[in-house]
Amino acid sequence: MSEKPTAAQNSRQLDTSIFRTDRLMNDGRTIRYYDSKETSRTAEDLRPTEEPAKMGELRLDPLLNEWIAYAAHRQHRAFLPPKELCPLCPTTGGLLTEIPDSHFEVVAFDNKNPSLAPAGSEWALPTLSGPNTSTTGAAGKCEVICFSDEHHGSFGSLSLDRILLVIKALRDRTQEISALPNIVQVFPFENRGEEVGVTINHPHGQIYSYSYLTPRTEKMLNTARAYHAQTGRVLLDDVVAREIKDGVRITAENEHWVAYVPYAARYPFEIHVAPRKSVADLTELTMDQLNAYPEIAKRVLLQLDGVFNVEMPYMAAWHQAPVSVGRDVLRLHWQITCVRRAPGKLKYLAGSESAMGAFIMDLTPEQSAEQLKAVAIKL
Amino acid sequence: MSEKPTAAQNSRQLDTSIFRTDRLMNDGRTIRYYDSKETSRTAEDLRPTEEPAKMGELRLDPLLNEWIAYAAHRQHRAFLPPKELCPLCPTTGGLLTEIPDSHFEVVAFDNKNPSLAPAGSEWALPTLSGPNTSTTGAAGKCEVICFSDEHHGSFGSLSLDRILLVIKALRDRTQEISALPNIVQVFPFENRGEEVGVTINHPHGQIYSYSYLTPRTEKMLNTARAYHAQTGRVLLDDVVAREIKDGVRITAENEHWVAYVPYAARYPFEIHVAPRKSVADLTELTMDQLNAYPEIAKRVLLQLDGVFNVEMPYMAAWHQAPVSVGRDVLRLHWQITCVRRAPGKLKYLAGSESAMGAFIMDLTPEQSAEQLKAVAIKL
Repeated sequence: MSEKPTAAQNSRQLDTSIFRTDRLMNDGRTIRYYDSKETSRTAEDLRPTEEPAKMGELRLDPLLNEWIAYAAHRQHRAFLPPKELCPLCPTTGGLLTEIPDSHFEVVAFDNKNPSLAPAGSEWALPTLSGPNTSTTGAAGKCEVICFSDEHHGSFGSLSLDRILLVIKALRDRTQEISALPNIVQVFPFENRGEEVGVTINHPHGQIYSYSYLTPRTEKMLNTARAYHAQTGRVLLDDVVAREIKDGVRITAENEHWVAYVPYAARYPFEIHVAPRKSVADLTELTMDQLNAYPEIAKRVLLQLDGVFNVEMPYMAAWHQAPVSVGRDVLRLHWQITCVRRAPGKLKYLAGSESAMGAFIMDLTPEQSAEQLKAVAIKL
Repeated sequence: MSEKPTAAQNSRQLDTSIFRTDRLMNDGRTIRYYDSKETSRTAEDLRPTEEPAKMGELRLDPLLNEWIAYAAHRQHRAFLPPKELCPLCPTTGGLLTEIPDSHFEVVAFDNKNPSLAPAGSEWALPTLSGPNTSTTGAAGKCEVICFSDEHHGSFGSLSLDRILLVIKALRDRTQEISALPNIVQVFPFENRGEEVGVTINHPHGQIYSYSYLTPRTEKMLNTARAYHAQTGRVLLDDVVAREIKDGVRITAENEHWVAYVPYAARYPFEIHVAPRKSVADLTELTMDQLNAYPEIAKRVLLQLDGVFNVEMPYMAAWHQAPVSVGRDVLRLHWQITCVRRAPGKLKYLAGSESAMGAFIMDLTPEQSAEQLKAVAIKL
């Protein structure tokens, strides 16, 4: 495994404001500390050694030709632990957590109960179709990224400097994971709120890296390819151009980024955030684009919390071009979808959305953009 | 509108055990009473006349080439009303409901706040792609079907005779709606439980009829067509043959139907129910197949309630071949998906499922089939 740290400390500077130190965990997993200044990271994982989790399996759904991953060992994972048992808090006193050190800024570590796990280089995704297929190992990689050692808070309540460190860490993770065997696409995301199934409240995100093209990315790729073949143009560039031209659905913008409720949003509150100069993935962002991200990210997330003056449950997804296909037509954007449609009401994906994939919305995108823009923001 | 009843009563016998009477509602909508024996239905809708709901709009999501429907008037629809205000109970005493009569068996009526509504014959779905499209009217049809005039209960707790009346009514609705202008596919479904967003607890289902091919049906159609081109065979027939051969995931069966947890299920508890002799849609079911359905439907739903001895929240979806395409390769099946993965835990469609369409499961289909089969059923 190319990314395993050696026994000796393995700290290095990634750019002027980010340092990385890799450490081994008790069961052979790796934890990576991302620090804004050079910091000694020597704390040992003192928990008893455990068996690493078993790899799950992939099965092909013959009706839709889509892979489904099974990770039966995950059924008993941590479920809404109280702060004093939180596995994402730093190790202090008697509490031995996933993070051996007693203070940290940002850490990324291999998920203890991964849905997708690294397979050897002999693994290959079988080409299957039809109803008479057999299973294969659920190759891929799942990481957890903690945004802070404070149990309370959220991505939007972090300082601008910390948000910058998070985005740079995600960029480093994308770069490293993209080079691993069997990885087809890298997907960083954050779920926020018990309403969307969050099982640990400590501010954190996840990075799922798949050994197969996900159904949505595949469809976005086919759509972008058809548009490129027809017009010679990159679809997301023209989508953003239309949003800028229409103007009415833009909720925040700065020199390098634009945030909008898309013309055909699927959720009561859905925001897309894209760089004005488009790139394939996080690794291609310039330093200027990176530096301008925290301000728009914080603005967008505070707008969401301000709409109903309650913490907005959301899913924030980084759409990136896959590792080796479609990099000429697919473009990075950050999609935030919210299921709250009114203070006491959630949007459910019921019959039409779940069974048919046909979305029905109660609010127009212009209505939700107006509500978002009306929120007074203090950064 | 070809299906509007005349002012005179318009009752007719559909087969030996089902009679239909159409009546007009106060705002011009139609209610259809389905009775197991000839019944006089003359009650008038005594509510004040209201304006019919405005038609919503369709927008094309350019990133996925999918239609999204907007029905902004729906934001203020009934939300978990108490029994004494339930709009799906019969009209009694001072309560004037959607159903003018004081007793009924099964009724189907046009939704008061439809997401999709009939358009004139001049309406046509535009052929669009790319980011610079404009909106069109949300043509289609939404109906509500009440299974009983009792407020409490569920589809699974109905008598076998009543379940038969419901399936025959759905069949009649499919036949009639399929002949209307602009209708591309007819989708009967039932959501059960507040956990999946049910806003009225009275036992009922819905029928969404779309003016466009839904994303999931389109993908199922493409997959089935490719399989047919390659093998000359109908995909669902071979899917069911594999389930029968494997055996281990079959949870119920009778002479005409088979119920199974599919080999690549997406939810903690997912059951597909298909006729042994496949058909394109409900209208093609034989009288023998219809008569054998209530027993397997009740068995399957009682198994689900028995797994954790609590009412299982579910979405039950009838997948039918579209009205005029794919009828040679797509086949009727009833898909029931449940979001409860343990007594106090729900399965959420979080980052991977929502943003990527990539499903991750905690239970294998064999594990959930075993739990379902272990439930003792008394019909």
